[in-house]
Parts: sequence; C-alpha cells; structure tokens
Amino acid sequence: MPVETLSWRGGLDGHVDLLEQTLLPAEERRIAVRTVDEMVDAIRRLAVRGAPAIGIAGAYGVVLGVRGADAKADRHEVVARAREAAQRLAGSRPTAVNLFWALERVVQRAQRELEAGRDARAIAEAILAEALLIHAEDAAQCRRMGELGATLLRDGMSVLTHCNAGALATGGIGTALAPIYVALESGKRIAVFADETRPLLQGARLTAWELGRAGVDVTLLVDGAMAGLLASGEVDAVLVGSDRIARNGDVCNKVGTYGVAVLADRHRVPFYVVAPLSTFDPALLTGADIPIEQRRAEEVIRFATSSTAPPGTRVRNPAFDVTPAELVTAIVTEVGVIERPTTERVEAALRAGGRI
Amino acid sequence: MPVETLSWRGGLDGHVDLLEQTLLPAEERRIAVRTVDEMVDAIRRLAVRGAPAIGIAGAYGVVLGVRGADAKADRHEVVARAREAAQRLAGSRPTAVNLFWALERVVQRAQRELEAGRDARAIAEAILAEALLIHAEDAAQCRRMGELGATLLRDGMSVLTHCNAGALATGGIGTALAPIYVALESGKRIAVFADETRPLLQGARLTAWELGRAGVDVTLLVDGAMAGLLASGEVDAVLVGSDRIARNGDVCNKVGTYGVAVLADRHRVPFYVVAPLSTFDPALLTGADIPIEQRRAEEVIRFATSSTAPPGTRVRNPAFDVTPAELVTAIVTEVGVIERPTTERVEAALRAGGRI
Repeated sequence: MPVETLSWRGGLDGHVDLLEQTLLPAEERRIAVRTVDEMVDAIRRLAVRGAPAIGIAGAYGVVLGVRGADAKADRHEVVARAREAAQRLAGSRPTAVNLFWALERVVQRAQRELEAGRDARAIAEAILAEALLIHAEDAAQCRRMGELGATLLRDGMSVLTHCNAGALATGGIGTALAPIYVALESGKRIAVFADETRPLLQGARLTAWELGRAGVDVTLLVDGAMAGLLASGEVDAVLVGSDRIARNGDVCNKVGTYGVAVLADRHRVPFYVVAPLSTFDPALLTGADIPIEQRRAEEVIRFATSSTAPPGTRVRNPAFDVTPAELVTAIVTEVGVIERPTTERVEAALRAGGRI
Repeated sequence: MPVETLSWRGGLDGHVDLLEQTLLPAEERRIAVRTVDEMVDAIRRLAVRGAPAIGIAGAYGVVLGVRGADAKADRHEVVARAREAAQRLAGSRPTAVNLFWALERVVQRAQRELEAGRDARAIAEAILAEALLIHAEDAAQCRRMGELGATLLRDGMSVLTHCNAGALATGGIGTALAPIYVALESGKRIAVFADETRPLLQGARLTAWELGRAGVDVTLLVDGAMAGLLASGEVDAVLVGSDRIARNGDVCNKVGTYGVAVLADRHRVPFYVVAPLSTFDPALLTGADIPIEQRRAEEVIRFATSSTAPPGTRVRNPAFDVTPAELVTAIVTEVGVIERPTTERVEAALRAGGRI
C-alpha cells in the first residue's frame, strides 16, 4: 500500500498530519500543521506538493482558520475567517488550479451554511466535513483513474514517468502512478523508469522512494537521459500527472514534461496524462493562458549544502511547462479516458463531471 | 581571455599542470600530474574532461610514461613504455575518440623515430614534441572553429548550449563556446543560456563558471527547462560540442543533447555542432555503432554529501546520447562548415583534412 501523504487528525480542534516531503528520501518524518500560516508555509516549501494534495491541504488549511469556533461565536465572523484563510492559502502557489478549486468549494459550503441560518459551530463543522469530503473524493478518484488507466497497461510493459504524481501528490494512490499500482494489484508486471526531475528532484526523492517502498520495479535516470531512453524503444508508455489542463487539452505539468511529450511523439510512445477533473481549468482556452510560476535561483545554483554553480549566477527557473494537446495520446480522468483531447472532447468530459 | 585548462611544464622531466575541474565552481585549484596512473585517474575522475582536452591529456600522459629516458636507455624499451602508457590511458574513458586518436599519433611518432634510428632520449623528446604539437594544433583549431562559427552568429543573438564545450574542454578557447568568444571579441552582443547538464552539472559548474569568469552574459537552467525555452522563441541557435561523430554525421555528445536537438528541430532553431576533425571516427558508419559509456549510479543518487534518491536505487546512467545527422543544421570544423551533414559531405571534409 502506498504511503499516506496527509490526513486530518481529531475533530474541529484537530490538526493536519503531514509527511514532510522536503526531508525525503533521507528521513520519513511527519509534522503537525495547526495554523493557516503553517499550512501556507508547508505548501510554499513543498512540504506538501502535487496538485491534488495541495487542494486537500488548502481545504484543511481553511478548517485551521476556523478552529475553535463555538456555537456562541459570530456566524458571519466564522465565514469571514474562512474567506480570509482561503485568500492567504491561495497565495501560496500560483499554478495548481486544484488549490483554488478546493478553497472555493469550502468557502461556498460555509456561505451556504450561513445562508441556511446555521450557528458558528455548525458552519465550522460543515467546513471540516467539506474538506474531509474533498479528501475522500480525491482518494476515490485516484482509485477510479487507476482502474481506467490500468486498462492501457499490458503485462510486461515499461512506463516512463516524470516528477511525482503518486500517492505523495494526492490524497489516494496517485494520478500518474495509480494505473501502475492497480495494474500491479491485478498481477501485471510493470517496470517504471523515473526521471529525477530537477531542480527539486521529485522523481529521485519521491517517486523512486514511493515506488521502492511499495515494492515496485523502478529505475532512475537524469532528465537528459529521457530522450535516449525513448529512442531506445524500451519504453511502452509515458504516464504523467498535471497541474492544470486548459479547455483544449493543453497540459501544464512539471518543467521537463513538454520535452518528454515531444520525444514520446517522435518515437511513437503513447503519452498519457492522468488527472482528475479538478485539474481542468475551463476558464483557460489554451495552454498559452496558463501562468507559469518562476521559482528561486537557489533551487538551481545550490544543492543541499553544496554550490552547483558560481554564486550570483543568473537563473531561469520555471516550475512548469505546457504540453500542447496534439502531443497527448489521452487524458485519464475519473469520469473516463479522453482520447486525443480536443476542446470538444474535454468539454464533453467536463460536462459529464458537472464542471461546466 | 578564457581559462587555461592544462599545460606541460618544464622539459622532458616536467609534468602536466591541470585545473582540477571536479572542484569547480567552489575552488580554482591546479594540480601537478606526474605519472601515467595519475593521468588515467585524472581522466577517469573527470578532473580533466571534454574530448579535445582528454586527447591532449592522453598525449601528455604518454610523455609521463617515458619521463626520465636518457640517451643510454634501450631505444625499443622507450617505445614499448610509450605503447604501454597509451594502452592504459586508452582504458580511462571509452567514448571520446580524440583520446585514441591522440594516443595513436604519439605512439606512431615514437615508432617513426625508432625506425629512423634515434636514441632513447631523442625518441622521448619527439614524443613530448608531438604532444605539444597536438596541444598547439588544438588551440589553433579552436580559434579557427570560433572564426567560422562566429559567422553564424548575429549581433543580439541568444545561444543555448549543453554541457561544457568551452576552454575547459579543450587546449584553446573551446569548441561550442569558441564562436561565442570570437563573436564577442568582434563586438557582437551574444547572450548564452546554459543547460546545467546532470548528472555532473558541467553546465552549471563549468560553463556558467567559465563564461561568467570571461564576462559573458550567461543564464543557467535545468535540463528539463530547455524544451520550454526553445518553445518560447527566445533562443536563436543551439551550439554544442561532440565526443564522437560518425561518418554519416550522427553526433554523440553528452546525455541530453539528443533531446535538445529534437526540440530545436521542432521549433526551427538551428542546431550547430562544433568539433574538430579529430572528433570524427571514419570507422563508424552511423551513430548506432558508437559505444555509450554507462557510468556509476552514485552520480545520480548522490550529490556531494547529500542523498538525492533512496540508497540502492537502480539507475540508468548513460554519459552520452546520439543525435541523428538529420537534426544537425551544420557541423563547424577547423576545415570548414559542413552544412546539413551527410556521409558524402562528412567524407569531403575528412578528405580535406587528411583524415581519410
């Protein structure tokens, strides 16, 4: 069974129990997150990362903002605190749309409870219930995407993945890795190649760790070796997650994904994106509209305690890139597989899932 | 003026003065190499690296093998020692053909001197003279490639490079970086993007260091960011070196180069390879025949003192990949620019340079 990334512990006065991912793979330490500021910090530091997990963390973060509300508190004040918490949490990472989606969902639930005349305590408890529901739905979606995606994998296949879109990135068994876990459960033999994924090495630190811990056959490679590996014919499919998908099927994901997609296309290796509908942003017509987070130079010029480049080196450090829909063989969602995504097909899936 | 990578100090009983590249960018330390074993070790450790520099280091390594030969020594013994040194040096790195070429050249010179009836001392001095000539020729070739390559660069251009094919990789001003140095000398403004080039980070540690030290405008990026950068339209040309070029123009270079070439092709960015004729291997008909060095897992799973992946992680760690000739806009050599390389055009250049 894959590792559990985060969970809510206790009742309304509880806290979030979080696997501190920045310490992996050296140390498996869990931390208790008790305030909105701590959650903003945890998301920003990438202690919790992966679009679905960030969404869940954000929802729990709103709960932390209304902790301690009792029945006698001001009803409007509780909703205002939820909104204020959501606003601060929304500023923690700019790209993952799941975060905004989850924050909006708990705030709207609070608003509905307010309008229904509930007292402060009941509103706070509804916020917690909504956050727990988002988490449970995510776990169910991961399982469902795993089942749909596993139908694309045959016994003996080798799969290449980039970054970490596994259990560590979600509230369940992952997105891109979910089909692998399900295929393995059903007795198929699947070997995984994992790009190390600079600058933060999520492939090396997280995917190799997560898959190795779960007993999966995994081989690590530097990002630059991906092209030669795809040329060698040893890879049967690429599976990646996504941070945001535009209405036309353009996929924003960890920097380096676009290069993998181009090479997969050149060598006729299917390129699958596995992502829940919450990753889609119907407001974005194409990937060109997706804002790309530029991160600190230190991620590139330092590694742990070592310099990897001269001090002061200028750095271009985008966290993500955009893969045009034409390079995507299929997007696996919890409501079905969108083959060769187009605006029409994406809209049909979004309609099926009630997202538009 | 770019940094000096290596030089022979003193006469026949001298030594090689080498910039210890494994310590860059933290420390600029020079070491004295006095024995064949030390040179084998320096090449294997990548204290000296880059195909042309390895060739020069190998040639000097043979000199170290015949150090101390005096006129009264056995003439045949000196040549045997040179051959034995060349054999050990040839085992230090398997891919760079310049090494074998340079070793063969000094051994053949020794053989010619033997056949001409020279005494042991004269043979040893001829070996040193040949090694110094290889070095001087390399410096002249770098300058010539720089001049030819600079004609491809216009004022205001941005260039992307991968790994380090600069002064640090040669006995002169570099291969891929030579056109940049020459263009800058002539007053053109050229900005450089440098891939960090995992696993050994030659782009970050060496190219950013070397260009920064020479006052060149350089921006560093992780290898995965190359695809998005090429898609953005900000790059006007790619310049890379090579470790071995097949007769049909297929180019073997640092792992990751092939991916850069595919993305450059997709975004209509010219992809230039800069390499002296000594990098060509007329015995190889295509790139499929080039042996690819697989290096230690530790390069990928550790960085300095930090683990980057769980202990024991299986790793695929090729040092190089092969870019098919169809993706190469031109190969800049010291005898001219081979546009859109084909077997016929490569052979014409090799003939012009007396290589076949």
